[in-house]
Amino acid sequence: MAKIKAAFQGERGAFSEVASRQFLGDSILPVPCESFEDLFDTVEKGKAKYGVVPIENTLVGSIHKNYDLLLERDLKVIGETYLRINHCLIGSKKISLKNVSKVYSHPVALDQCREFFKKYQTIAPISYYDTAGAVKMIAEIDSLNAAAIAGPYTAELYNLKVLKKSIEDEKTNFTRFLLLSKNDKPFNGKAKTSIVFSMKNQPGVLYKALSIFSIRDIDLTKIESRPLRKKAWQYHFYIDFQGYIKEERVKNALNHLKEISDFIKILGSYPQAER
Amino acid sequence: MAKIKAAFQGERGAFSEVASRQFLGDSILPVPCESFEDLFDTVEKGKAKYGVVPIENTLVGSIHKNYDLLLERDLKVIGETYLRINHCLIGSKKISLKNVSKVYSHPVALDQCREFFKKYQTIAPISYYDTAGAVKMIAEIDSLNAAAIAGPYTAELYNLKVLKKSIEDEKTNFTRFLLLSKNDKPFNGKAKTSIVFSMKNQPGVLYKALSIFSIRDIDLTKIESRPLRKKAWQYHFYIDFQGYIKEERVKNALNHLKEISDFIKILGSYPQAER
Repeated sequence: MAKIKAAFQGERGAFSEVASRQFLGDSILPVPCESFEDLFDTVEKGKAKYGVVPIENTLVGSIHKNYDLLLERDLKVIGETYLRINHCLIGSKKISLKNVSKVYSHPVALDQCREFFKKYQTIAPISYYDTAGAVKMIAEIDSLNAAAIAGPYTAELYNLKVLKKSIEDEKTNFTRFLLLSKNDKPFNGKAKTSIVFSMKNQPGVLYKALSIFSIRDIDLTKIESRPLRKKAWQYHFYIDFQGYIKEERVKNALNHLKEISDFIKILGSYPQAER
Repeated sequence: MAKIKAAFQGERGAFSEVASRQFLGDSILPVPCESFEDLFDTVEKGKAKYGVVPIENTLVGSIHKNYDLLLERDLKVIGETYLRINHCLIGSKKISLKNVSKVYSHPVALDQCREFFKKYQTIAPISYYDTAGAVKMIAEIDSLNAAAIAGPYTAELYNLKVLKKSIEDEKTNFTRFLLLSKNDKPFNGKAKTSIVFSMKNQPGVLYKALSIFSIRDIDLTKIESRPLRKKAWQYHFYIDFQGYIKEERVKNALNHLKEISDFIKILGSYPQAER
């Protein structure tokens, strides 16, 4: 049986690959992409059936690049999942923590492990372009004094070992990922819908937009604003709400929103994940 | 007369220094800081009376680091101003555009000049930590084939010349800056107020919060959300609205908001700038 191709940004073993497995199972064929643009291209051109992107992290906030790409490109959101971000110190099987003097990782990951570096003051944090990429590099150079910070899955993948587990400062470190595809996928059960819209630049417009959902008891789970590039100080609003695109009250709300907005795009309606 | 010290992030000549002059006049004593944290420290410790930070750009969006610092630290917002971001190609007085093969700048500035690099394909863009810092480096090495992208003011400051003006793709490139100080500064005239608050995690809470302003005809000019680090999937909301903190309707609105929120902090009330 042909494996399902799943595109994600980063090297093999990235948190996004782990999220892909959470969405699609362990028998996927991972398609690593250099950038989020490449990932959108890969799925749009049919080189992978699915794409998996991080959209929001509980510590860092929204990944704005992906909000912008969801607006500009035409992929549909067909799923969401939450992944606990668990940073491990990973290095050669020949060494232990006391041999480590340098640690490579993505700056965001290094920043999320400040307590670790405060405790081990002889260990220098060094910025690298990617978490899994840092593990790959450590494996390639077979270093006896350098380690990397990444998810535990990368240790196994690159034949290294976990020198220290869960070194992140905050245990409430979760990332929400979206599953993207060229086409919608019908489903049953609890749904969430993501849309983006912009409104005429008038006082109180956002309040009016939110009232459209409130009067129909539709619960908003997220709101995010991004600048309109061609119109200074006006915004696109991204909203996630509970409800399926084919429900009567949702259809009514969206029709109502069309009346008062300049632009509206449905990003997708998909099964709501448990947090 | 002692000069007024103004702290900003970046090297001498940074857009933030230009914004400082727009706020405080040309006779300021510039205090460059390495990071935004350093800037907050510098002003809190009284090493500079004022701090100037970018908070939002029409193309890139919000500068989240500064939203986070406004929440964590205790400086007051006492002013706002808008600056047109005008990117120039800057190099040695001995060269012209045709000699340039490499261009250094901050990745965001490079990204805002894509059309330039598309037109001049033999010129390689190279990432540097800072726009004004790139100009400083070009001046120091007296390069005959490298240039930098930064504001026009840096050419004069480092004794270089503008090789090409206005190379940014979008002319609607503006940044909003805030003026920070340890103490409030009373004033007359049109006011804006910035606050941050968090609410109980219940359906429709943001709608309720916005209705507090809407029923009193208080116009919101900006809304931004940032994650609560200790509580997954809950948010701080940052709101800017038109009105002075000592107006009756504003006092009433804030009292009303206190009733339904978990946390509220007034970041400042300040003269509204013309866009």
